[in-house]
Parts: sequence; C-alpha cells; structure tokens
Amino acid sequence: MTKLSPLAPEAFPVIPNISGVRMTSVACGVRYSGKLDLLFAEFDVDTRVAGVFTQSQTAAAPVQWCKQALLEGKARALVVNSGNANAFTGKSGENTVRLTAEYASEKVNSKSNEIFIASTGVIGEQLPHEKITDAMVNLDTKVNIDWRSAAEAICTTDTFPKGSYEKVMIGNSEVLIGGIAKGSGMIAPNMATMLSFIFTDASIPSDILQILLRDSVEKSFNCITVDSDTSTSDTVLLFSTCKVKHRCIKNHDQKELIEFKLGLDRVLLDLAHQIVCDGEGATKFIEINVSGADNHAAAKEIGFSIANSPLVKTAIAGEDANWGRIVMAVGKSGQKANRDALSISIGGILIASNGQVVEGYDEIPVAQHMKGSSIVIDVDVGVNNGQSTVWTCDLTHGYIDINADYRT
Amino acid sequence: MTKLSPLAPEAFPVIPNISGVRMTSVACGVRYSGKLDLLFAEFDVDTRVAGVFTQSQTAAAPVQWCKQALLEGKARALVVNSGNANAFTGKSGENTVRLTAEYASEKVNSKSNEIFIASTGVIGEQLPHEKITDAMVNLDTKVNIDWRSAAEAICTTDTFPKGSYEKVMIGNSEVLIGGIAKGSGMIAPNMATMLSFIFTDASIPSDILQILLRDSVEKSFNCITVDSDTSTSDTVLLFSTCKVKHRCIKNHDQKELIEFKLGLDRVLLDLAHQIVCDGEGATKFIEINVSGADNHAAAKEIGFSIANSPLVKTAIAGEDANWGRIVMAVGKSGQKANRDALSISIGGILIASNGQVVEGYDEIPVAQHMKGSSIVIDVDVGVNNGQSTVWTCDLTHGYIDINADYRT
Repeated sequence: MTKLSPLAPEAFPVIPNISGVRMTSVACGVRYSGKLDLLFAEFDVDTRVAGVFTQSQTAAAPVQWCKQALLEGKARALVVNSGNANAFTGKSGENTVRLTAEYASEKVNSKSNEIFIASTGVIGEQLPHEKITDAMVNLDTKVNIDWRSAAEAICTTDTFPKGSYEKVMIGNSEVLIGGIAKGSGMIAPNMATMLSFIFTDASIPSDILQILLRDSVEKSFNCITVDSDTSTSDTVLLFSTCKVKHRCIKNHDQKELIEFKLGLDRVLLDLAHQIVCDGEGATKFIEINVSGADNHAAAKEIGFSIANSPLVKTAIAGEDANWGRIVMAVGKSGQKANRDALSISIGGILIASNGQVVEGYDEIPVAQHMKGSSIVIDVDVGVNNGQSTVWTCDLTHGYIDINADYRT
Repeated sequence: MTKLSPLAPEAFPVIPNISGVRMTSVACGVRYSGKLDLLFAEFDVDTRVAGVFTQSQTAAAPVQWCKQALLEGKARALVVNSGNANAFTGKSGENTVRLTAEYASEKVNSKSNEIFIASTGVIGEQLPHEKITDAMVNLDTKVNIDWRSAAEAICTTDTFPKGSYEKVMIGNSEVLIGGIAKGSGMIAPNMATMLSFIFTDASIPSDILQILLRDSVEKSFNCITVDSDTSTSDTVLLFSTCKVKHRCIKNHDQKELIEFKLGLDRVLLDLAHQIVCDGEGATKFIEINVSGADNHAAAKEIGFSIANSPLVKTAIAGEDANWGRIVMAVGKSGQKANRDALSISIGGILIASNGQVVEGYDEIPVAQHMKGSSIVIDVDVGVNNGQSTVWTCDLTHGYIDINADYRT
C-alpha cells in the first residue's frame, strides 16, 4: 500500500472470531506479485445471506452471479479477488465466474449457488481465472480467522485495511457482528457501495437479513461519496451463520432485533466512514448536515450536490471557508431551496442567515476550524423539515496523482 | 490573467463593428485594482433582446432582474462587472442592481427595464455598488467598439478573452453576429451557461430571438462542462440592434433565417469550445460522441456522465487510455445501456465492441492519440438511435491549484 492516509485510524480493530466463519487469504498474483489478493471465506451449513449491489447499467459478471445466487439465500463460501475487476469482460468473464464457483463448491462440498463472488480492480481487462482456481485448490480453509489479512486481500488503492465489529444482544444471547470493507476511489451514492462483507453468528433468516441490510446500507454506504463515480462491481454481503441459538426471528420489526439493528448500523457506518477517510488523496473528513429541505430525499440530494462539488471540495482542501460555493452547490441540486431563507454554518459557527452573510461576520474562528482534519458543514435551505447527513472528503493533488495513471 | 491555457487560440478574432452597439470597458476596482472589470454596452433604440439563464435555485439578483426586464424584450444598455458576483447578497444585492439600472438608464435616457445587468466573481460577498455607479457617471459611451477589451472586462479566472463572429445573409442583406463569453470554472450543463453576450445588427423581434437563442444554447453552451458545478449567475443575452433592413421576420422557422441560425450556432459553439479550452487547469480538449442511446436526452446524459467523471478526466490528464472508466461512467448515468453490445473508440480506433476489448487490441496508436491536445471518444451503448455530442476538458493539478484558495 502507498502512503498512509492522514485520516487513517490508529490501528486495525481486534475483531473476535465469528463462529461458523473461516477466512483465508493468499497472494495469487492476479496483478501484483506478493500482494494478498484473494480472500476465501468458508461458512458452516445453515449460513444465510443478504446482499445489496451497484445500480450500474454496466454491472460486472460477479454482481449478476450474486444476485442470482441470492434467490436461495444460502451461503457456503465467499471468493473475492482484487487487482483486476471481472468487469466488462464479456462471455469470458462470465466463464471465469462460473469456474470460480465450481471450484469453490467442490472445495466446500456445496451447490454452486451457495458460492458468492466479488471482484475489484482495473475494469475491462480479462481476469485470468487459472490464477484464482489454481490458488483455491491449494488453499487450507481450516485456518483461523485473520481479519486484518482478509481486509488487506480485498484492497486496491486503499492505504489501510478497514474493519469494524460490535457485540449486541438478541434477547438474552450475545451475538457478534464483524465486517470488512474496501475503498477508495470510484465511490459514489445511488448504488450499493464498494465492497464490504459483514458476518454475524446470529440466527436470522435471509429475507429478514435482506431488509436489515438494505435499511442499514441506506444510512451508511449510501450516504458517502469520494468522487461521484459509481463502480460496476459494488457489493455488500451480510452473512448470518446461525451459530448462536436465540429467540426465533420471524419478523424484521421484532423487538429482539432493536439492538442488532443499531449494532449493524454502527458497523456499517464505521466502515463507510473509514472508506471516506481513505478516499483517494483525502486530507479532510467532511460531514454535511442539510436541514429545512422539502423532504429527506431532497435533503440527501442537496447534501450530495455539496459533497460532489469539485469547487467545494477543492476549497476545503485549500482550507478556504468559501461558503459562496456551498450556496452554488445548493442551487444546482435542482431541489427546492429558498435563497433568501438560507443559512450556513461551518464548524458550528453561523456564517450566513436569511440569504446573506451575518452582520459582523468574523472569519478567524471558521478559518481555524478549516485547518482541522474534520470539517462540519450545516446548511438550512429554509423550505420544510427534510433533513439528511452525508459524508465526503476533500479533492486534492493526491487524487490527481493516484488517478492520472492508475493502470501502470 | 494567469498563465495562458495551452489550449488557447492563437489570437483574438478581428470582429467588425456591429451597427447600433457601442462598448466601453473600464477598471473600476471592484476586486483588483487596474484590471478591466466593468463592461458597459449601449444600444440604439429599437434594439431587441433575448436571454437564457442559470437554472440554479439560488440564482443571483441580476439574473432575476434580467428575467423581469426580458418581459418587454427591449434593450438600451448592458452593464457587466467581474471580480465579485452580486450573488447571495440579500436585499442589499437587489438594491445594487436597482441602483445600477437607474444610473445606466439615466445615462442612455431609457426606462430602467431596458437595462440588462450581469455579474461574475466570488459569491456571497457584498458588491460595493458605488464603484460601479461612480464609474458609470464618468464613462464615455460614444467610443468605438473594442471587442477584445470588452471580452477582457468580463473575465475572472479566464486565461484568455473569448470572442467569435460570423457574417451571414438574411434574404439579400448581410448581417453580422458577434459575441463574447467568459469561463472558466463552475461550468456545467442544465443551465444557461456562464456569461456570454451576443450582438447582431439583424432586425429580429424579441420573441423570435428568444426561440433562436434557446435552440442555439441547447446545442452549444448546454453541451459543455468543465467541473459539473453550475453558477448562480449564468447569463446569455442576444441583442438585435435592427440596423440592417432585410425582409421582415415574422416567424422563427421562416426560410430567410436558415443561414442566420447556422451562423448563430457557429458563434455560440465557438465560444462554448473556447470556454472548455480555458477550463481551469485544462490541458486537453475532449469531444465525447454518444450514439445508440434510448433517445437524444439519454445520449446527452450519458455524455455528461462521462464528461463529468473525475476518474475519466484524470485518466485523460495522465494520457492514460483507461477505457474501463468510460464503461463505469456509462453505467452510472442511470440511462439504458446494453453492456454486452457496448463499443468504445478513442481517436477513431476501436477498442471494445460487444461488451469486451477487441481481439488483438493494440494500445500503441491509442496512446499516441492520448498525447495530443484534442481527444475524441466515441461510445455506442447499443440500445437505440439516440445520439449527442458533449465537450469537456481534463482534470489536472492546475484545477486544484486554481481552486484550493480562489478567494485570496
């Protein structure tokens, strides 16, 4: 991995083993030699699964495979490679997916639609399936979980591996929720997200898992953006190994799930924030709170209009409290805004209200806030009660450096 | 002006005088001392006018003024300042517009709704109206047209002034169409454009002018993007001084207007391309042709999805023919695309067809094309017959440099 993001967490969390999950990662040389680039996770029988995927019109072959496999809702293995996405690779790409599933199902003695596959890296180049299938043959899947290596194996331009976990109660039983994710460019809303895999030892049927996952993604991965670009391979999968025997879950709004839902939300939000903190070239983590919008969806769209504005993002990179650009970004979103009732705060300091700068505005404390690594912007657009929060990072020379010649 | 864009034209065109228009420009010190920052254009009586404006929800006071004034369709003067936009300035901003119109109407002996006003620069800071009104009092409006100074007076971060003209026939009479424009950041579609002012000595009623202008803007300024950000102050005005007496124009589809429409299209497209060539930090001019889309609007949306993708733009800055990112940008647009029928060419060289890279693809000639300053991308999305062309520039370190601390 290249130079560590200045927003990286101090350490990778110590995530406990999750009963029913065994993970292995190897370097199989898909693109770079020596880099961990293949994650293989085996699940005990009875594991259930839910998934949310990219909404891209040019979705990759593994995404289409997973959507099909999800119809059964059962999982026995997950195979993820990094370095070369199996995207825009035609029939040959579909063949690679099928072969990968066949090898994996033979290894874990399952049906092939119990195998889930994801792939990330350069788009459009053929993925050499032999490297993956050969590596799987020799894989020792009986090893202990190594969360950090698993998280590293799915990284591309990420500068740090991303993991998170929570312990929560379902009734009187403690369950674990652990997850990993990768960024860090081509991150945008209106999708599922980038790759993220969540595991729990709770016993939750796949149709209920699907509702919980979709709700939680909507509040986390679907509230972040790095560069407004949506990948062809975005995949979030949630696996429930059903190892902990707690009160039977028959409904997504059963009161026993309250704590589980909050725990799932925290894990996904933590991973989503880590992706933003590792946004390509990021030096500032930015929270944007929009209120006073026509409704929640309008608030989110205004939030993303600000979060995706190159002019807002470069101003923050330059530590310039250029709030005029926030006004511009509110205006261009297309959602209702009352220019003459608009108010803007940065770092909790009111800059503008009723559509103009406040009297005696002192930029010194705002400039001080801009020098920090965590920037908070509050905008009230003065229309109604809709509100939403989105997160992004700044746009810097680092982003250009990373992306001007990514393939070499 | 700062370092000249590498895509700048060799020289400012020698635009002939247009009868009925007199332009003056002065340095009135709105933001910088010594820079030409006020354009005053006086028109003879009988001048008609049409306008197209930003669709921003936080549109600036001068935009609202012009929309109101357009209801009469008559123009006697145009006042434009640069350096500080009169945007998000509340009641005081509206007052500045009203005072500017009053001073100007007194100067040219007209009604105040025959005065058109535009303003560009930093958003959100109060515009000191005295500098503008004082300068107007001393202005000598009887001087000859100096197109280059006029174009310079409306520039902000532009590195070269932008002008264009055409001579066309209406019936047996020759008429002139001349225009100026400014960029060069906060340039995006779904708006009118940045500032552009077009003048003609033809005799065309304002309601017909309005139709001609809207059609022409749709094919030019509304087909460009620099950074996906839409200004609060975008304004295009077309003034017709009615000095040339040709066959009476009573209808927008009258055959005498055919040549005029083509000439107007050429002037606007030339100015739009100049804005792209002066996009902040631009080193490459990029043409994106989308075909095979569901319809024209879908093709345009896919074109802009490619043109606004930071990953596509940085790859081109790095002279990297990373066509996988084009696939991604097609997919994220939300418009229909058939992944397995998609084809992509760069510089006229077919790279991918039927959803995958062509057999024996040789990147050498494509890499050669990427080194040039004019990049052509053709994408067929394999759905239907919709097509559209949009233009943009690359995303470079220069953009970050210019925008990370614009206000100082």
